[in-house]
Amino acid sequence: MTFLEELSAVLAPEQFSTDPTELKTYAVDQAPVTDFHLPQAVVWAGSVEDVQNIVRLCAKHRVPIVPRGAGTGVSGGAHASAGCIVLSLEKMNRILAVHADDEIAVVEPGVINADLNEAVAAYGLMYAPDPASFKMSTIGGNVATNAGGLRCAKYGVTRDSVLALDVVTADGSLIHTGKNTFKGVVGYDLTSLLVGSEGSLGIVVGITVRLRYLPRDVHTLAAFYPNFPMAAAGVLAVGKARVQPAIMELLDGGSLRQLDDTFGSTLAERGQALLLIQTDGFGAAAEAEVVREVLRAGGATVSTEANAEAEQLVELRRNSRGVETDDEFRVGEDVAVPRSRLIDYVAALEVMAAKNQVQLKVVAHAGDGNLHPTFWVDERDDSQAVTRLNAALDESISVALEMGGTITGEHGIGQYKLRWIGQEQPEAVREIQRRIKELFDPAGILNPGKAI
Amino acid sequence: MTFLEELSAVLAPEQFSTDPTELKTYAVDQAPVTDFHLPQAVVWAGSVEDVQNIVRLCAKHRVPIVPRGAGTGVSGGAHASAGCIVLSLEKMNRILAVHADDEIAVVEPGVINADLNEAVAAYGLMYAPDPASFKMSTIGGNVATNAGGLRCAKYGVTRDSVLALDVVTADGSLIHTGKNTFKGVVGYDLTSLLVGSEGSLGIVVGITVRLRYLPRDVHTLAAFYPNFPMAAAGVLAVGKARVQPAIMELLDGGSLRQLDDTFGSTLAERGQALLLIQTDGFGAAAEAEVVREVLRAGGATVSTEANAEAEQLVELRRNSRGVETDDEFRVGEDVAVPRSRLIDYVAALEVMAAKNQVQLKVVAHAGDGNLHPTFWVDERDDSQAVTRLNAALDESISVALEMGGTITGEHGIGQYKLRWIGQEQPEAVREIQRRIKELFDPAGILNPGKAI
Repeated sequence: MTFLEELSAVLAPEQFSTDPTELKTYAVDQAPVTDFHLPQAVVWAGSVEDVQNIVRLCAKHRVPIVPRGAGTGVSGGAHASAGCIVLSLEKMNRILAVHADDEIAVVEPGVINADLNEAVAAYGLMYAPDPASFKMSTIGGNVATNAGGLRCAKYGVTRDSVLALDVVTADGSLIHTGKNTFKGVVGYDLTSLLVGSEGSLGIVVGITVRLRYLPRDVHTLAAFYPNFPMAAAGVLAVGKARVQPAIMELLDGGSLRQLDDTFGSTLAERGQALLLIQTDGFGAAAEAEVVREVLRAGGATVSTEANAEAEQLVELRRNSRGVETDDEFRVGEDVAVPRSRLIDYVAALEVMAAKNQVQLKVVAHAGDGNLHPTFWVDERDDSQAVTRLNAALDESISVALEMGGTITGEHGIGQYKLRWIGQEQPEAVREIQRRIKELFDPAGILNPGKAI
Repeated sequence: MTFLEELSAVLAPEQFSTDPTELKTYAVDQAPVTDFHLPQAVVWAGSVEDVQNIVRLCAKHRVPIVPRGAGTGVSGGAHASAGCIVLSLEKMNRILAVHADDEIAVVEPGVINADLNEAVAAYGLMYAPDPASFKMSTIGGNVATNAGGLRCAKYGVTRDSVLALDVVTADGSLIHTGKNTFKGVVGYDLTSLLVGSEGSLGIVVGITVRLRYLPRDVHTLAAFYPNFPMAAAGVLAVGKARVQPAIMELLDGGSLRQLDDTFGSTLAERGQALLLIQTDGFGAAAEAEVVREVLRAGGATVSTEANAEAEQLVELRRNSRGVETDDEFRVGEDVAVPRSRLIDYVAALEVMAAKNQVQLKVVAHAGDGNLHPTFWVDERDDSQAVTRLNAALDESISVALEMGGTITGEHGIGQYKLRWIGQEQPEAVREIQRRIKELFDPAGILNPGKAI
């Protein structure tokens, strides 16, 4: 039997496809593509045993495996590679346990982030990491990319909520890493090593997560500013007041104009930058009051109380990603800089956009200095447009690094950001990672060409 | 030249000692000793270059290196091993930078935890991880053990506060891992892998930490209960009320009697279990009020308001470790269980103490299910006493694991807990860790026989 015959033989008919339309659909996630390939097949695992059988066959035939959740990644971590199969985990979507007293849940990788939150809300609990894709993306995919989101500054990123993992390794074995308790220090932290490894060290088939308390009280403020530097100064002022908001989102004038265009709002008439702040918990009201005073003192026009409009703006911001798709003419970046450099960095972005004649808008998870500039070009028939766009992108990366930042705050390296990794990490650090990869996956079949 | 001659030649005279008294002092940390060795020499590094020179010489001569901070560890991670030198980092104690706007600090490994906290308090900031040893222990040692403490349930453990590391590897190279920003997902998380590795993968010579906001308001409650199960039920009740205290410490009757004996207090007259809860932040008062109601409803006698006595009790609890030293007749354990098993676990501990005729007291960082039972025997001339003590210890470990717990919540494996590691981690997971160790340290010179 050929590899594909063997593969289809260990799966039910509906778990295996070589249909050209499916191959194309599953060939890419939502990131720009730098190296397009069609997979040989798409398979849908229904169980841990399925994953083990698939991995064993791929190991035997040295066929690369690209694991995939919902395919909402924006760095190309789930882009197909040459000769691969795509292993979808979206059907493994059971919430296996919610231990409310212990504040933990155990899920299969295909559980949608929002579905887990819905399930645990009944207990007054939440799963904190909330990437913009939370209504579509899977916990397994969130683990693969160490996904961030809006609430990170207060509640941490995915890694901070993952206690234990069940992982199928490159030889088809099943291992369990981590612990069921909040604390545990036995040996090396393999769980943290696997989180964010984009499926390149093992395939995550089970996840034990820590839950947090659903806040009883939430206050949301919208602060409009005449310009971006004043808004960025507001971020630092809130920090100086020692208030830790759950959400602190910063939108520049370009982002406001885009929201207006999309939703018919008139935000840009009210300011050239918007700072959205949400406080939560027992101190939410008191924190919101301090924030309001601090922002007004910094020149903002602040909503007078926790109001529906501010909450709606947060929802708009949360869902803003869905309205556009990146391609070679439009790229949403994801860098982080130390918070004190937010003003300088955005000023530098504006200079590079102007110099390279590309369009720019910026949103930021300002609480943790994580910026998403989007560069785009309108003239798609101009042969130089993509060159100019890429020049701006390269410069945006270099300048972030010069300011002490990182080339990816929460999206991951995937395929798309590989070209910049050498600027951030020297060869010695990259070599350690290559050797860890070899240790876990000597034949190099697990999502090759990604992450490191 | 001999190895020791070469070693002394690269250091200043005061950085090198083979004095028998110093060798003995630096041969052990505060843990019970299962395998005693005197080091060949003790050396005190004053700079990164010193560490590199020392490691290069040890690599050349295949001499094991036991890195050491303040030596306050309680699992024997800094116990000398056969033929080793002890490399003390206590003199590398400079706070290199405090970036208040970015809420990060950069420190040398020998900085005392409390000194960092004092330095950043001026900015309204704190370094959150607070092991009981915080007045003596170093940040480097805290990183080596991934130290916990009282505030973990709310603020996380050491790993959650470490953003980046400077590390001297086994060949004397210097690498930098991690990022200066709160978020960053470039490649594999080597920083988390190194935190908690007890110096067995590299020697940490620089640490970039995230700081948190010093809370403006703190409320402390002391709740006395007639028995332990009611107090443990109080822990779950606070959780169900969805209040996240900064501190939630549980002391059993034995612990209260010991505090009375040591400090002349009369705590044991007021109850057979004490729950100490501290809330902090803008919601501290409101949270304390909810906690007070919940605990009273559960049968506690609760201090009527945030009062000096409750705060004093927290200080007593914080400092309780210093009044006793573990040895073969007295061992303080460190397990964690899912919170819902606290009652069952302490009941089981009482049974095993009675059965093995050993004394028992229990304190717990109850917010994260982390218990420190102490077993001891009074009759040191009884040849069976140590056997009985060890039987109780072994059983306490087995039962914690049966309840879904871990053999060490925050102290680490070191030398002392190696005997139990196989009960928690199967061979496949241990083998991965051995191979990671080989990858970082092929000659096995970095703190051999520890951690994994």
